[in-house]
Amino acid sequence: MTNATRRYAILGTGALGGFYGARLQRSGIDVHFLLRSDYHHVCQHGLVIKSIAGDFELPHVHAYQDVAQMPPCDVVVVALKTTQNHLLPQLLPPVLKTDGVVLVLQNGLGVESDVAAIVGDDRVIGGLSFLCSNKIGPGTIHHLDYGSINLGEFRPGYAPGGISDRLLQIAAEFRNAGIEITCTDDLLLGRWKKLVWNIPYNGLSVVLDARTDAIMKNPHSRQLVMDLMAEVVAGAASQNRYISDEFVQTMLTHTDQMKPYLTSMKLDFDSGRPLEVETIVGNPLRVANQAGVALPKIAVLYQQLLFLDARNRHKCVSSL
Amino acid sequence: MTNATRRYAILGTGALGGFYGARLQRSGIDVHFLLRSDYHHVCQHGLVIKSIAGDFELPHVHAYQDVAQMPPCDVVVVALKTTQNHLLPQLLPPVLKTDGVVLVLQNGLGVESDVAAIVGDDRVIGGLSFLCSNKIGPGTIHHLDYGSINLGEFRPGYAPGGISDRLLQIAAEFRNAGIEITCTDDLLLGRWKKLVWNIPYNGLSVVLDARTDAIMKNPHSRQLVMDLMAEVVAGAASQNRYISDEFVQTMLTHTDQMKPYLTSMKLDFDSGRPLEVETIVGNPLRVANQAGVALPKIAVLYQQLLFLDARNRHKCVSSL
Repeated sequence: MTNATRRYAILGTGALGGFYGARLQRSGIDVHFLLRSDYHHVCQHGLVIKSIAGDFELPHVHAYQDVAQMPPCDVVVVALKTTQNHLLPQLLPPVLKTDGVVLVLQNGLGVESDVAAIVGDDRVIGGLSFLCSNKIGPGTIHHLDYGSINLGEFRPGYAPGGISDRLLQIAAEFRNAGIEITCTDDLLLGRWKKLVWNIPYNGLSVVLDARTDAIMKNPHSRQLVMDLMAEVVAGAASQNRYISDEFVQTMLTHTDQMKPYLTSMKLDFDSGRPLEVETIVGNPLRVANQAGVALPKIAVLYQQLLFLDARNRHKCVSSL
Repeated sequence: MTNATRRYAILGTGALGGFYGARLQRSGIDVHFLLRSDYHHVCQHGLVIKSIAGDFELPHVHAYQDVAQMPPCDVVVVALKTTQNHLLPQLLPPVLKTDGVVLVLQNGLGVESDVAAIVGDDRVIGGLSFLCSNKIGPGTIHHLDYGSINLGEFRPGYAPGGISDRLLQIAAEFRNAGIEITCTDDLLLGRWKKLVWNIPYNGLSVVLDARTDAIMKNPHSRQLVMDLMAEVVAGAASQNRYISDEFVQTMLTHTDQMKPYLTSMKLDFDSGRPLEVETIVGNPLRVANQAGVALPKIAVLYQQLLFLDARNRHKCVSSL
């Protein structure tokens, strides 16, 4: 199923890119990793994956700190935080083969169309990753739970994209690396469904300084979660994507049963990193507004997050 | 103008009740103070007022820790935090003269009708205090700024109440004590106008852990303030009370020009005291909803404050 000559690039070798890239390399794929702060460490020591599915090490990986040194790749995985997406016009073209495809493994809405504006409409696949992992040291990633990806072709205007051969090939390569994969013909529906979880829990975890269990336990914040989910469903409907009550209920039940969880936005906030406010909250809000649908409760969360993000960044700067 | 035989009770001798009560006593009024934690200290040492308008001390005051010991009073000033209002059915009847009146100097909405349910519809006056003062030690109050009160008669259903003789008499007594007083025939309009400031700044100061200047400086939180003010105006309109754009603009300009200010709710939060969420945010939200007007952004603030208040109280208990 896999092809020994297939070559992947991982742009952003953090908790997500490092985990999936290491799994792909272990399965026999030729993987090339772009790194920043961990570059020298990973050149010397490779990658270490501590995982509920089994620890492993890759003593030797192809590591780069400049895309100009990387070979052209069949699949370029964008695994940066979306707050780094302003770098993509410089990062993507050198590393993408003429017939290569970009796989966007990021949170939020609108990221694929930004990538398509750089590389062309027919060269983008989106992936929704359900992964709980942390980078716990240079080149060292702790995979705590989950790990599945939902893959879908991007089409202009997020029209349903069908299931292409190249989508199936990437799916097969990830499956061969031990990753659970589903394919969808409607990437936009997948993205909105993920937002049903991401908007309330990422947003409230930062604003209320709380884990998922505390948010779910208090009846008022629990109701606020449900109110925000209802607005996400309304936002999806403004784009002709329909999310069932059952799905929303499943998200609530699932979160009740989860281990207490710090969201990615809360981890970013506590580490003083910029928050992915625009892709996770701002873009959904704007597309709904442009379709004439107000989402006032999400708008409050958005404005609060922008305030907290600005103050958080300011703190970082002034502590230097 | 003042009458030497007139007798005031101050229920709650804190930053507000202590300040106004001391001013009234200094002017010659017979004032009786209900205290809790400061009772023994004030019995021995009286009250100390440090004020931008001039420091003064009252070495001897009538101090009580039980309303059963207090004489019946012509004017009973309710200066408790509204989170203590469940005590009013026990506190008010013993201390109120047969022809006496209760003056409610509290924040928020609906407090007069609660008091009227205890003492009768024709025995309640409301007052909106614009005061910046802190209790800085037992029996010691620091008056930092402002101090005016807007007085109005309560009528069932908050109908406009006219300017009664007893209202004018109380106004004269406060003026004689050096307090700036305005009288209004429409207490409800006054209360909604005060909420234009109180809901956004009290709420956001707690949720965002911020002073007024930081909230006003960031364009997103500033916009959120304006959005919340617009919802307060809509809530007032649902009760047939109309607040002009000019008034809203004045509140914004005034806050821009204020010294950086920690709101009363933020001071309560930081001290681990219960927040006045229900009277300041919950009651306005409910009366608007009952009139068929949704205030979704205020609803978010309300749910967030209830979460934070519950956690804050829990912290207090578990630290014992």
